[in-house]
Amino acid sequence: MRLATIRMSTANGDTTTAARIDGDGTATAIKGYADVGALLHEPEWARIAAHAEGGRLDFTEHDLAPVIPRPGKIICVGLNYAKHIDEMGHDRPDVPTLFIKYPEALIGARDDAEIPEFNSATLDFEGELAVVVGKHARHVREADAERYIAGYTVINDYTQRHFQKRTQQWHQGKSLEKTAGFGPWLDTDWRPGPTLTTTVNGEVMQHAPTDDLVFSPAKLVEFISHLYPLAPGDVIATGTPDGVGHARDPRRYLADGDTVRVEIEGLGHIQNTTRVLPTS
Amino acid sequence: MRLATIRMSTANGDTTTAARIDGDGTATAIKGYADVGALLHEPEWARIAAHAEGGRLDFTEHDLAPVIPRPGKIICVGLNYAKHIDEMGHDRPDVPTLFIKYPEALIGARDDAEIPEFNSATLDFEGELAVVVGKHARHVREADAERYIAGYTVINDYTQRHFQKRTQQWHQGKSLEKTAGFGPWLDTDWRPGPTLTTTVNGEVMQHAPTDDLVFSPAKLVEFISHLYPLAPGDVIATGTPDGVGHARDPRRYLADGDTVRVEIEGLGHIQNTTRVLPTS
Repeated sequence: MRLATIRMSTANGDTTTAARIDGDGTATAIKGYADVGALLHEPEWARIAAHAEGGRLDFTEHDLAPVIPRPGKIICVGLNYAKHIDEMGHDRPDVPTLFIKYPEALIGARDDAEIPEFNSATLDFEGELAVVVGKHARHVREADAERYIAGYTVINDYTQRHFQKRTQQWHQGKSLEKTAGFGPWLDTDWRPGPTLTTTVNGEVMQHAPTDDLVFSPAKLVEFISHLYPLAPGDVIATGTPDGVGHARDPRRYLADGDTVRVEIEGLGHIQNTTRVLPTS
Repeated sequence: MRLATIRMSTANGDTTTAARIDGDGTATAIKGYADVGALLHEPEWARIAAHAEGGRLDFTEHDLAPVIPRPGKIICVGLNYAKHIDEMGHDRPDVPTLFIKYPEALIGARDDAEIPEFNSATLDFEGELAVVVGKHARHVREADAERYIAGYTVINDYTQRHFQKRTQQWHQGKSLEKTAGFGPWLDTDWRPGPTLTTTVNGEVMQHAPTDDLVFSPAKLVEFISHLYPLAPGDVIATGTPDGVGHARDPRRYLADGDTVRVEIEGLGHIQNTTRVLPTS
């Protein structure tokens, strides 16, 4: 089952609704839930979504809001792709490296990334598999963790490299407003393994299987839930494989007009064009 | 004016209310607002709070909830006390170091810090001045930043040092559930300058004026609001002065039963005892 957050115009202004995306590409509104995050707070969310008959929605891909518009947490994992760590000559880590992105960074699956000119140097992409939490999780063991995962989606952990690296802590380069494509939908049936491919203006930059992780989604739920609770709608971005612009020779940063597409086979794709906004 | 979030028992169960703390130490409920965070989302919050006549609340200091129970953001600043940086022989930084604590880490001004045994090594205190945002802030200049600050309060940026340092990113040691005392109230009149003092079981560990910052509250609002928006109720923890347990010789980590008190003159104090919870 695929669940999306769809933008709508109503007599009372712009709003969103949670929706089920059916096999023929049509969407059915899940009435009473403004977005997938609100829906996931229902213990019976899967049943409610499967049985929704809220009427067919006309939508285009530009109506896709960030699949969860305001996750309580977006926890990003650093070095996690095994092949990439090995080829860089690093030891595989014992514990995941975690840092945080705020919801204000999220954009819909086809939205533009909008960067004020003063933040627009050294922009980079990081295509990633994102895990969405479906149930309150605290002190969960890896063997039980699957039950706490609602499903998967795609995220671009969009990064300003200079800001990431000018202090010891990466956060300030990882959370610029309106940068990180997130969607197109939450897929509750898909499982890690299929290939992630990132392109910039059609040129392949990243290409890796999504199960080559040092820390699997289940392991990450175990690890994080022993630090603090995870709540429905929380997101874990599982890390990016090799091929980011900053690590290329020559470097390949994003400029105004560049389009990043991140696709995960069987899961869907996001495609976002960077727009640098002049500032006075 | 001082604003607190007070716990109450009602026929419908436990709840909280925003309250004004008056000069005689009594509290007046601000009806319709469950906590100070909800109140701050009203553009007219200061007027509403000043004119509240919601009835006098009987409360003890143990009824103090985290002053804002669920800030959208708790942004912590790393090295920021000028004297401490100088004496360590470091250059003063050009930009602040930022990292994130989640709301689940917060506890009330007199609550116990509750740490499961498996997380209980190398626990440390960091007494800090916290800035509370009072108004949506985006691209704010330092000279205008005062208008976006609702006021000040006290926070203990409680830290698990091993977790902080075992990867490059500090977050996993900075956000353990139910650890960070936060309160006792938001003071809208107090201004930085007076001394912060941290004690452990009555012994002074930190003692520094709160205006010896490389990055002032106004500068921090400017810096952060150029990365992403700040919202009412967001919190900036401004960094800790010298004297933390990890930097002492011998090291002074917190154990079960240790009480940390962080007081800022004229602002108030938090006092929290660490409790290590056995785990099976």
